[in-house]
Amino acid sequence: MARKREIFAFQGERGAFSEVAAGQFAGGTVDVLPCTRFEELFENLRAGSVDGAVVPIENTLHGSVHENYDHLLNFDLPIAGETSVRIVHNLIVPGGVKFRDLHRVFSHPVALNQCLRFFEQNPQVARETFYDTAGSVKMLVEEKLTDAGAIASARAAEIYGAHIVKRSIEDDRQNYTRFFLLRRPEWFKRHSLEAGRKGWKTSLVFSTRNVPGALFRSLSALALRDLNLTKIESRPLRGKPWEYLFYVDLLGNAEEERVRNALRHLGEQADLLRVLGSYPRGS
Amino acid sequence: MARKREIFAFQGERGAFSEVAAGQFAGGTVDVLPCTRFEELFENLRAGSVDGAVVPIENTLHGSVHENYDHLLNFDLPIAGETSVRIVHNLIVPGGVKFRDLHRVFSHPVALNQCLRFFEQNPQVARETFYDTAGSVKMLVEEKLTDAGAIASARAAEIYGAHIVKRSIEDDRQNYTRFFLLRRPEWFKRHSLEAGRKGWKTSLVFSTRNVPGALFRSLSALALRDLNLTKIESRPLRGKPWEYLFYVDLLGNAEEERVRNALRHLGEQADLLRVLGSYPRGS
Repeated sequence: MARKREIFAFQGERGAFSEVAAGQFAGGTVDVLPCTRFEELFENLRAGSVDGAVVPIENTLHGSVHENYDHLLNFDLPIAGETSVRIVHNLIVPGGVKFRDLHRVFSHPVALNQCLRFFEQNPQVARETFYDTAGSVKMLVEEKLTDAGAIASARAAEIYGAHIVKRSIEDDRQNYTRFFLLRRPEWFKRHSLEAGRKGWKTSLVFSTRNVPGALFRSLSALALRDLNLTKIESRPLRGKPWEYLFYVDLLGNAEEERVRNALRHLGEQADLLRVLGSYPRGS
Repeated sequence: MARKREIFAFQGERGAFSEVAAGQFAGGTVDVLPCTRFEELFENLRAGSVDGAVVPIENTLHGSVHENYDHLLNFDLPIAGETSVRIVHNLIVPGGVKFRDLHRVFSHPVALNQCLRFFEQNPQVARETFYDTAGSVKMLVEEKLTDAGAIASARAAEIYGAHIVKRSIEDDRQNYTRFFLLRRPEWFKRHSLEAGRKGWKTSLVFSTRNVPGALFRSLSALALRDLNLTKIESRPLRGKPWEYLFYVDLLGNAEEERVRNALRHLGEQADLLRVLGSYPRGS
C-alpha cells in the first residue's frame, strides 16, 4: 500500500526559499500548501490540514523573524527539525528572452537590495519591486513579458518553466536563512526523531523576574552544566512594558540528564519556562 | 544675544510620534528636520546639518527597531539621552467633518492594527492604509476630504489644524516607544549631561568569541559587580553566519569605578566592545 504523501505548509508563492527548505526537511519531494501570512502556517498545522509547517526563524544578514518567535509561544506547536538554506539569487527570464533584451528586473525589495552590485554593473536595467521573489517569476511567465527578468530561487525557475540567465548575483554569499519544521504534538506519539552525527538542539523560552541579575542567574543554570548556548533572542512581554521573554537554543536534548537538571534549575528562576522542542541539529 | 535654536532630525512627517519625542528631549519647542529614512537621521547628524537625531529604538508591543541598532554601531554617534512616548492613537478629522460623516479612516497599517476594537464597533468605517500616521492627517486636510478621518498623534491634529473626534482609540494602552537622542562627539566637549533623580544608564555593544559559555562569561563581568542589566538584544554579525553582536543597557555611568571595572573585564572576554553612551535615565 502506498504511503500517503505528507503536506507541508510554507509562506510565499511556489518556488519560494521556504519551499526549498520544505524539500530539505522531506529529503526529497513533498506536497506543499503555500500560505500568504506566517500565522496561517501555524493555523493550518493546528487545524490538521497539513502535516508540518516550515517556518523561517532567522537570517544571517537580517536577524530573527520576530513575528514567528511570538507565534512559537502562542501556538505551542513543537519543533521537530531545523535546516538552513543558502539564499542564492538568480536572474531568471521566460523562455526566448535574452539577457540583452532586459530593461527591468522584478523582485521583492529585500532581494533587489541584496543584488546591488548587479544593478551597478548593469545600469540599463531598472529595479521593479514586487510582493514576492518567486511570485515575480510566475508573473513574468503569465504576462509573457519580453523585456523583463526576475530575481528568485532556482526552484522558482524550474516550477514556472523559466530560465536562469545569471546564477548567484547576490552581493553577500554569507546569506542563509534558518527554518524550523513544526509538527503537531500527536505526531511525536507515533514517531521518534533521530539525531544524526551532529547531535541534538533544544529551543526554549523563559521570562525572568524583574530583579537585578535575573537573566545572569537564569543563564547560570545552563552554564553551570557546560551547556552550549547557540542563540539568545529577546522579545517584549505584552502588558509589562520593558520586560522581556528570552528565547534560547542550546546543544543537547531535553531528555538528557544534564539538560533536565538545567531546566529544573532554570524553572526555579523563571516566571515562565517552556521547551519549544528538541530536534536533530541541522547542518 | 538670542541663543540659536537647536534643530533635531526625526523620521516621519511633521506630527509623528518621533516629533513628540523631540519635544520631550528639548523640554519644549525645538526646530525639527523631518526625514524619510532612519539612515538619514544618522547622516544628517554626522554631516552637522542638525544638532541631534531622535531615534526610535524599541516599542513595548513590537520589540526593537533592529535597523537602528545596526546604525548605532556603524555611525558611532553617541547617545545623549532617552525618553519614552506613550503611543496614543486619536481619530482625527478636518474642520467641519463630523463623526457620522466618516466612511473611511486612513493611517499606517501598524496603527490601524492597533485600533481593531474601534473598527469592530464601527463597521460602517473602512480601514485605508497610508504610508504614515501624521502624513494621513496632512493628506485629509490638503485634499479637503469630507468623508474620511485619520489615526495619528494629538500633535498631528495641532500641526495640520484638524480636530480630534475620539481620543485614545488604541486597543492596548501599554504601548510605549523608547527613543534615543544622539549628538555629535564634539557636543560632549562643550556640554555635560546631568543625571536626574533616576541616575544614569549606559548602552554598549559587544561580540563574544564563538566558544561555549562566552555570553555567560561576558555577562558575569556585569553581574559580579551587581550591575543591573535592563535590556539585551542580539543582532547577526555580518560575514560570520550564526554569530551575534549583543547590545546591552545597564544602570550606571561608564565613568563610575564599578562600571569601568566591569567594562575592562568585559573587554577581556569580548572580541569587540564599544560604549554607545552614558546618559540620564528617562522616565
